[in-house]
Amino acid sequence: MPRYRINVEYDGGPFCGWQMQANGPSIQGALTRAIKSLSAEEVAVFGAGRTDAGVHALGQVAHFDLSRQWETDKICAGLNFHLKPDPIAILGVKEVDDGFHARFSASMRHYCYKIITRRAPLTIERGLAWRVNSNLDAPVMHEAGRSLIGRHDFTTFRSAHCQSNSPVKSINSVDVTRLREHISIKISARSFLHNQVRSIAGSLKMVGEGRWTVSDFNAALKACERSKCAPVAPPGGLYLVQVDYD
Amino acid sequence: MPRYRINVEYDGGPFCGWQMQANGPSIQGALTRAIKSLSAEEVAVFGAGRTDAGVHALGQVAHFDLSRQWETDKICAGLNFHLKPDPIAILGVKEVDDGFHARFSASMRHYCYKIITRRAPLTIERGLAWRVNSNLDAPVMHEAGRSLIGRHDFTTFRSAHCQSNSPVKSINSVDVTRLREHISIKISARSFLHNQVRSIAGSLKMVGEGRWTVSDFNAALKACERSKCAPVAPPGGLYLVQVDYD
Repeated sequence: MPRYRINVEYDGGPFCGWQMQANGPSIQGALTRAIKSLSAEEVAVFGAGRTDAGVHALGQVAHFDLSRQWETDKICAGLNFHLKPDPIAILGVKEVDDGFHARFSASMRHYCYKIITRRAPLTIERGLAWRVNSNLDAPVMHEAGRSLIGRHDFTTFRSAHCQSNSPVKSINSVDVTRLREHISIKISARSFLHNQVRSIAGSLKMVGEGRWTVSDFNAALKACERSKCAPVAPPGGLYLVQVDYD
Repeated sequence: MPRYRINVEYDGGPFCGWQMQANGPSIQGALTRAIKSLSAEEVAVFGAGRTDAGVHALGQVAHFDLSRQWETDKICAGLNFHLKPDPIAILGVKEVDDGFHARFSASMRHYCYKIITRRAPLTIERGLAWRVNSNLDAPVMHEAGRSLIGRHDFTTFRSAHCQSNSPVKSINSVDVTRLREHISIKISARSFLHNQVRSIAGSLKMVGEGRWTVSDFNAALKACERSKCAPVAPPGGLYLVQVDYD
């Protein structure tokens, strides 16, 4: 059976998350329905990152199998047609060999967490960034963030509901940059724990506000205690930007 | 009576436009209600630009009078509180002298029209840009746009419903730039005709697609005939970015 890889963009706002759930519409569910409308086949859709409710994707990757060969342009245009009016778009489709798995073959995942520092509520960017009512010191956040690079026990920065066997993960890069009132926290790793980026973003915000020093941040990491994490940053600021495969 | 100038940002999507109308919610109406909730006064709110339904503002300016002196910080926080949940935010408040008029004192208005060139529907930027399903040649659009600079009869690029006495306006600058798939058309003038920027954007898109040459564009301007205008660009791509006062 031919296997297809799709690159997917979505506004996570109206969804209960990537994964099909009983309690609301999901990206995976919308894709499964669109594939059925196009091909009349009930397929399993596997995604690279199981984004939470409200989390966005600029470059989610997923795969599924169809029983017959399709032109990739037809899959792309057809799925975009059937996905309407959901804010989900297929950016590209490629046929891949059956050794490819969107989740297990991924060699790197790139997330970005967006903060806007201002007093006024967000309007155009509502649900698309975290508004923080204070100035943040981006260079100090960057310094704290860089201490996460490498292999660590991330128990502090993982949801209590995380189902991963081990809290040990390797982070490849962390970059915090500022452009006027926009702060971006970019984090790349082969794989992440549940709520890991939002937990880190919430704690880096404390550093940016000067309420935590860089060594407070390091101490929170080293404590390996969930209770040492700052409040988790809201989902609307988080974007799954890109997934790499070897 | 003290006069206050406010800088206003909004997502124009849910509104029938700046101006109070019988057929739906307006920005002016929401501001008037919020000022009444705050001050118990029924005031007239004057805006610098009467944006259409669906048009956004990053830097709309408005003014109103109150019967007593207020701290500007209280007006700002109070209006933002009472504007919830509308996607309208007060970015700043200043007391101004009673010679100031948001509309008539404005010396320059800066608009930006945003286009995204791609085949896939928009998700995160839905209603916030015009998706164009073809590549656009930004340098050629820029060249055509620059021919608008100066004083011209803009009959071609003005709505049939425009209430301005004269179709003659002076445009100070036009810049078309591209950043990957994002094209920005920036236009500045002291004042604009109704639908002028969207009419120009729709016609520059024809140039960008190669369906019009630069001289076709110039001929459309010189014809001074509304029928020579390309289809008007949709409102969601248009932003009132800034208003200057001497």
